[in-house]
Amino acid sequence: MDKPHIALIGMGLIGSSIGHALKRGDLAAQITGYARSSQTRQKAQNIGFVDHVADTLQEAVTGADIVFLNVPVGMIADIVKDMAASLKQGAIITDVGSVKKSVMDAVNAHLPEHAVFVPAHPIAGTELSGPEAGFAELFDNRWCILTPDADTDKQAVATISDLWQAMGSDVEIMDADHHDLVLAITSHVPHLIAFNIVGTAADLEAVTQSEVIKYSAGGFRDFTRIAASDPVMWRDVFMNNGEAVLEMLARFSEDLTSLQRAIRWKDGEALEKLFSHTRDIRRSIVEAGQDTNDANFGRGESPHKSGHKSD
Amino acid sequence: MDKPHIALIGMGLIGSSIGHALKRGDLAAQITGYARSSQTRQKAQNIGFVDHVADTLQEAVTGADIVFLNVPVGMIADIVKDMAASLKQGAIITDVGSVKKSVMDAVNAHLPEHAVFVPAHPIAGTELSGPEAGFAELFDNRWCILTPDADTDKQAVATISDLWQAMGSDVEIMDADHHDLVLAITSHVPHLIAFNIVGTAADLEAVTQSEVIKYSAGGFRDFTRIAASDPVMWRDVFMNNGEAVLEMLARFSEDLTSLQRAIRWKDGEALEKLFSHTRDIRRSIVEAGQDTNDANFGRGESPHKSGHKSD
Repeated sequence: MDKPHIALIGMGLIGSSIGHALKRGDLAAQITGYARSSQTRQKAQNIGFVDHVADTLQEAVTGADIVFLNVPVGMIADIVKDMAASLKQGAIITDVGSVKKSVMDAVNAHLPEHAVFVPAHPIAGTELSGPEAGFAELFDNRWCILTPDADTDKQAVATISDLWQAMGSDVEIMDADHHDLVLAITSHVPHLIAFNIVGTAADLEAVTQSEVIKYSAGGFRDFTRIAASDPVMWRDVFMNNGEAVLEMLARFSEDLTSLQRAIRWKDGEALEKLFSHTRDIRRSIVEAGQDTNDANFGRGESPHKSGHKSD
Repeated sequence: MDKPHIALIGMGLIGSSIGHALKRGDLAAQITGYARSSQTRQKAQNIGFVDHVADTLQEAVTGADIVFLNVPVGMIADIVKDMAASLKQGAIITDVGSVKKSVMDAVNAHLPEHAVFVPAHPIAGTELSGPEAGFAELFDNRWCILTPDADTDKQAVATISDLWQAMGSDVEIMDADHHDLVLAITSHVPHLIAFNIVGTAADLEAVTQSEVIKYSAGGFRDFTRIAASDPVMWRDVFMNNGEAVLEMLARFSEDLTSLQRAIRWKDGEALEKLFSHTRDIRRSIVEAGQDTNDANFGRGESPHKSGHKSD
């Protein structure tokens, strides 16, 4: 089968990384990029993770076999509406959004009959944004979840699945609602918690912001990384996965209140029991290859590996 | 002034790192170590971050000019009681505990007249435990907070301050209650939140633990690191800093409820505003030298630096 002509709509962290990964694997006959901002288009041109930069959305998707939507999910409906007439027969639209049900609803409302949509979500990212942030290795050894429904063309699903594997990821097929629940707990609520604690710390009267920053190596700094993630992307995630997030948040808060009681009533046994349990979970994550074995995330400060047992 | 004879009581992550740092800087005339477990004593002997391993607490502190208490804070009262009679005239006791007020109360209840106590807290650590976890660089460029009160001998404070600086840290003098409040927000509550979310994720019925682990690169994995910290140490922290932790937790929960409402009522503006604010705080932390500039904590996955601006 011929290599596809691929269009990248949106060229931030994810879009640019896809460009780099496609080039690394020589996976496309041509890569055309488009972004709203002319500044981004210029930077993409300079960096070179696309072969051609289009000046309009319609131009970008013309002749494309595969169109990647790499934009905040809140923008997807309008984009699909605006590109619909320019899509070739049998074009495959796919996305990278962190929520799936609402994206599918948004796309399906405007998808022309002659195109196919394969919903996808690569579980990968850094806290950086923009075309300069991307790199080819972002998706290596990460999971990419696809959430086709019963009507989605199976050949198109296979095409997108193969492409993500060629870009370094493992692919999992999942029901869209289940995806949204899983991601609520593994990603959305952790981010919300991080955003929250950084905000709470910033608002204290008795402890200055400079003290919080100075002494952040005590644990706080780990939270600030993901609290530095793209504000627009995350706003759209919470606006579009409200139900699952609220369910997980309710459980989180119930459990936190329980811990709070244990602290107030000095129930040391309950505390120690939970803390021992959570240590085991960390071990499993490292063993599953989903995080580094280096202590302190390998921030260059320790020669030791997490797997290293003692006492 | 002659180099001191230093005793290390407790030889886990912190105690062993102090041993390594003292040797690196050739800061002691002799380093004697003691731990409750004979296994730890044997390992310390083998690794060699002490010159001599004592078989009893009393033997370890005999003749010591400086005694470091590197143990869970719940053990401190008994240890000071048991060592009191063996301390030489003018011996300086110091600690590394993450809470200060309760440690000072515990020590002062048993400290003999002829010894001095200088409360200290090096803001440093990894999620590992035990004598094999230590390394000399742990304290480099970190803050060490000392919380002497009005009665603490000033010369002793200077001695301990100089020693921590020689081991690589910057030293700050602070009121003990203020320390406990600052650490409640920069360390204790972040750890509690991390422990909690890992626990909540483990208890779900609709999402399996293996799914949580598989898809943990979405944000969850960052929390699991600090949720893998020493259970006993952390149990004692929460048992001994209850008031400050509960105050900070109340604020955290109020703010979280406010975010929850914004999500339920789809107040995108409020969400975006908070998320943009927290991004700025991350920047300050990196600029203050308190975390790496590398994206994703430099987990070997991105060539980019956090300070790298785009768009």
